[in-house]
Amino acid sequence: MRRTVHPIETESYRIMRSRADFDRFAPLTRAVVERVVHTTADPSWTGEVVADEDALRQGRDALLSGAPLITDVRMVASGITAREVTIGLDFPGVAELAASEGLTRSAAGMRLAAREHPRGAVWAVGNAPTALTELLRLAETGELEPALIIGVPVGFVGAVDSKAALRRSGLPAVSTLTERGGAAIAAAAVNALLYWAEPGGNR
Amino acid sequence: MRRTVHPIETESYRIMRSRADFDRFAPLTRAVVERVVHTTADPSWTGEVVADEDALRQGRDALLSGAPLITDVRMVASGITAREVTIGLDFPGVAELAASEGLTRSAAGMRLAAREHPRGAVWAVGNAPTALTELLRLAETGELEPALIIGVPVGFVGAVDSKAALRRSGLPAVSTLTERGGAAIAAAAVNALLYWAEPGGNR
Repeated sequence: MRRTVHPIETESYRIMRSRADFDRFAPLTRAVVERVVHTTADPSWTGEVVADEDALRQGRDALLSGAPLITDVRMVASGITAREVTIGLDFPGVAELAASEGLTRSAAGMRLAAREHPRGAVWAVGNAPTALTELLRLAETGELEPALIIGVPVGFVGAVDSKAALRRSGLPAVSTLTERGGAAIAAAAVNALLYWAEPGGNR
Repeated sequence: MRRTVHPIETESYRIMRSRADFDRFAPLTRAVVERVVHTTADPSWTGEVVADEDALRQGRDALLSGAPLITDVRMVASGITAREVTIGLDFPGVAELAASEGLTRSAAGMRLAAREHPRGAVWAVGNAPTALTELLRLAETGELEPALIIGVPVGFVGAVDSKAALRRSGLPAVSTLTERGGAAIAAAAVNALLYWAEPGGNR
């Protein structure tokens, strides 16, 4: 994807690279980590993001070939302007399914979205640990085969455990190590994959 | 505003309060700082937020009496579900004004929004330093009299300076001290004001 990079963004990347070392990362991993740090203006995120280069490539290929991109909440989708996004919470019947099955609405949204897109989608969870846990359950039962799960829910309750479970699952994944995460992080990871240009990184 | 607090949020606040001390803050300031930490799951934000209690009260009163709430970008608006939000970038003519005046589109959006809402609005800038700088210019020339400016743009370029200028301006304000900020922070500050309940804080 070609895009025009604003001079402010170019200057931001220059300053960022003077503050933290990104050379240790493989190309797509670097693109994701850099965009997260650019988005947060916080170099401490360089030690926080866990990603597998092959998984990222698979996710990027899926995104570029038009695979569905599904987020848990609207705020993640709002940060992605370069392509269409499906929001789990927007599926009809979310509230009813949540009530009848004792799920959070975010988890119910993921279940409904997975019924419609069981294979090859890219999933980006930026808010609810319960949404990520539901994706892992669906993958475990064979109802879901994702191209990539960007699992960066945030919070003091359940977020760390859900992201550790994602890493243990062996699914193609991006995650963060601590309680930190969020919609901006999820959107940054997606955008990094969308914007990346061979071979010189995402500039 | 009465709202139902999910058990996960209650547990999150309990954990958060065991990790950082919020007792030093005045009530509305505390509500803002707590919601920022809850949103980010990062207690280091307790030392980052600068707010004036009287300014927050004025902003809250404005929000509750139906004053316009204007954000720079859609991602801030997406984090606010409890009331209507106007987005600067959505004003017709933003691209043309930006091109003709040499402004960023975010700054052009603020200028157009200020023409429509010159007095008594609450402004929340979560992305672009240039949007905040434009608000300060408009206030300086007397074209803008805000009830509250939540100025938390993020980034390595201009964000720190624009927030320092906001604090120097004497305008009713919330800001952050470092390069950190963002849409989630802006939305959290607005939500803290909307959700706060006298007299026991925002629970």
